[in-house]
Amino acid sequence: MLGNFTYCNPTKLYFGKDALNGLNAELPKYGKNVLLVYGGGSIKKNGIYDKVVALLKANGKEIYEDAGVMPNPTVEKLYEGVERARKANADLILAVGGGSVCDYAKAVSVSVHCDEDPWEKYFIRFEEPSCETLPVGCVLTMVGTGSEMNGGSVITNHKAKLKIGHVFAYEKIFPRFSILNPEFTYTLPRYQMIAGFYDIMSHILEQYFSGTDDNTSDYIMEGLLRSLIHSALVASENPTDYEARSNIMWTATWALNTLIAKGKDTDWEVHMLGQAVGAITDATHGMTLAAVSMPYYRMIMPYGLPKFKRYAINVWGIDPAGKTDEKIAEEGLAAMEDWMKKLGLVMNISDLGANEGMLDDLTEATLIMQGGYKVLTKEDVRAIFKASL
Amino acid sequence: MLGNFTYCNPTKLYFGKDALNGLNAELPKYGKNVLLVYGGGSIKKNGIYDKVVALLKANGKEIYEDAGVMPNPTVEKLYEGVERARKANADLILAVGGGSVCDYAKAVSVSVHCDEDPWEKYFIRFEEPSCETLPVGCVLTMVGTGSEMNGGSVITNHKAKLKIGHVFAYEKIFPRFSILNPEFTYTLPRYQMIAGFYDIMSHILEQYFSGTDDNTSDYIMEGLLRSLIHSALVASENPTDYEARSNIMWTATWALNTLIAKGKDTDWEVHMLGQAVGAITDATHGMTLAAVSMPYYRMIMPYGLPKFKRYAINVWGIDPAGKTDEKIAEEGLAAMEDWMKKLGLVMNISDLGANEGMLDDLTEATLIMQGGYKVLTKEDVRAIFKASL
Repeated sequence: MLGNFTYCNPTKLYFGKDALNGLNAELPKYGKNVLLVYGGGSIKKNGIYDKVVALLKANGKEIYEDAGVMPNPTVEKLYEGVERARKANADLILAVGGGSVCDYAKAVSVSVHCDEDPWEKYFIRFEEPSCETLPVGCVLTMVGTGSEMNGGSVITNHKAKLKIGHVFAYEKIFPRFSILNPEFTYTLPRYQMIAGFYDIMSHILEQYFSGTDDNTSDYIMEGLLRSLIHSALVASENPTDYEARSNIMWTATWALNTLIAKGKDTDWEVHMLGQAVGAITDATHGMTLAAVSMPYYRMIMPYGLPKFKRYAINVWGIDPAGKTDEKIAEEGLAAMEDWMKKLGLVMNISDLGANEGMLDDLTEATLIMQGGYKVLTKEDVRAIFKASL
Repeated sequence: MLGNFTYCNPTKLYFGKDALNGLNAELPKYGKNVLLVYGGGSIKKNGIYDKVVALLKANGKEIYEDAGVMPNPTVEKLYEGVERARKANADLILAVGGGSVCDYAKAVSVSVHCDEDPWEKYFIRFEEPSCETLPVGCVLTMVGTGSEMNGGSVITNHKAKLKIGHVFAYEKIFPRFSILNPEFTYTLPRYQMIAGFYDIMSHILEQYFSGTDDNTSDYIMEGLLRSLIHSALVASENPTDYEARSNIMWTATWALNTLIAKGKDTDWEVHMLGQAVGAITDATHGMTLAAVSMPYYRMIMPYGLPKFKRYAINVWGIDPAGKTDEKIAEEGLAAMEDWMKKLGLVMNISDLGANEGMLDDLTEATLIMQGGYKVLTKEDVRAIFKASL
């Protein structure tokens, strides 16, 4: 645990099949006006909306709605949400949905009591909000982003061609509470479910494959990875296996709530590569990460060999006896690749709509990070995309 | 992650060599009067006292002292602390020391604004305090108990022959902040340091060896165990290895701050056995746990064989090829025993001052828990102590 750091995560989690009842404990802490934020309406089909509204009414709340939050919330939608929250004189924002809905609720929360333009002030200039925040609560219906227990918020400005993720270190931005019922994630289509599993995997690996120190965080990550690898296979066979889905939900939360980054450098190059693919093909986020991962890890492996060897042994159970370090590390990556194929993850960007003619644009669109075992060159980036065609 | 549960841990941690500077961020949040709580004065010898006082003064605080907190804080001392806090009109209790000092500060915190007798009301009847609590901050100088990030508090009443540990679920009892500088733990004598390492190990194992579910918490625990096993050997060779001591400090905090118990049954039978030894011989807590562990785990192993097999493979790296489950599990326990001996832990209660003539008293003094793979009989308890002579 090298370096100096702080840790604080005040979000209260209600977990399990009865988690929604946590609203009865939380709602009385806030005033009467609740801004209910959600996405495209799937929560109306699966009944979660009705349950939430019934609990809000039973707790005497006045409900103001803000529907239609899109998968990548836009700055225009943010302005609209801020106006809605102000008109409602909201005391609490209740986000019901996945990471985008929860991210959006946090963006509204930091903006509603500020005079400045939130895009200019926070999302471009990366400043901490100095004004009061509105309390946010989340009812999670999709797993992956960790937004339910962190200060992260990603907002897209199409005009400026910018999608900016702000991780507010500031504890007041974290949701005050989050409701995590694994059953609420059952209705997600299989493709999205599997993509989400790899998104979680990638969150952990981006933090694992960095640094040379021997750190408790690395050991915790190995535990989370083993749990995820096991439960993803179970859930892939049987998506309503409660234990597997509950383990995955819990792992997703702890994969990106700041804990496992403590004492670490971290690198997010796979996300940068994947986001470039997403920007050009509009493919599902988790699948873009999957499609670029193997060429990326095979390229950086020689530069972080001790960690890749450790990954092979501690995470994938590779027997090191009589093998060179390179061989052990390669067997670890091969085991990872097998697991990905077993799940049915997309392994090539060509299967996501990319082609050779897009290589220059993809390369141009990829941000180069500095925290990994190898800082990529533009040629490296191109080679990774080419290998994934 | 079976069952329904909540998780909330609002304590802010400042970690690292510069952690004490966190006081400059925290102290301005509270009023002028600070009750400075500490133990026997070792913090005056190692200079931590002077540093803390200088920071309190620089932040304009009025300092009221409450020294002499003993390793097992008594109810008489608690009454004294409550009076001191009231007279000082304290706005903050700052505990500087190990788990006992931190536990004691929390006991004062829940009692100072209550009219009822804290012993009768909380430590006998285990009720949640309904009155206001005083904020507590901790500067940790010893690792092991996890008190720096939980709601636990153990108070001893010698007259009533009771030592009662209360884990307040209530978030307001958790320290508001804790300062964790691994260097502050360097001056601890070797025997206490090693005993502390095993106390941490035991905290994790008491939660690990229970339940039949396949749970992310078990995987996180395997990570923490591997980190501890590795770093304890490094620190045992070189007690001022910063990285090892920092990993151990961080592991200790996460071993008992409620996270790894989520979705689990837990059992605390080794602590019950060890505390009986401690009550009769006055031996160091961690050493009492070490001395009873191997006979206890060898006795319950057949009743929790799948978990002991998993422990052997995932924690101790035992190669399962061609072996029966029993053989794998036994090899895991043998590896654990080797590690304990390498550290120099006490393996027999006779080395702690116990003898055959005490077997009846030890057996009588041992509470029987219900959460493990085998609920012990009185004969089992006696057999464990006998095997440890």
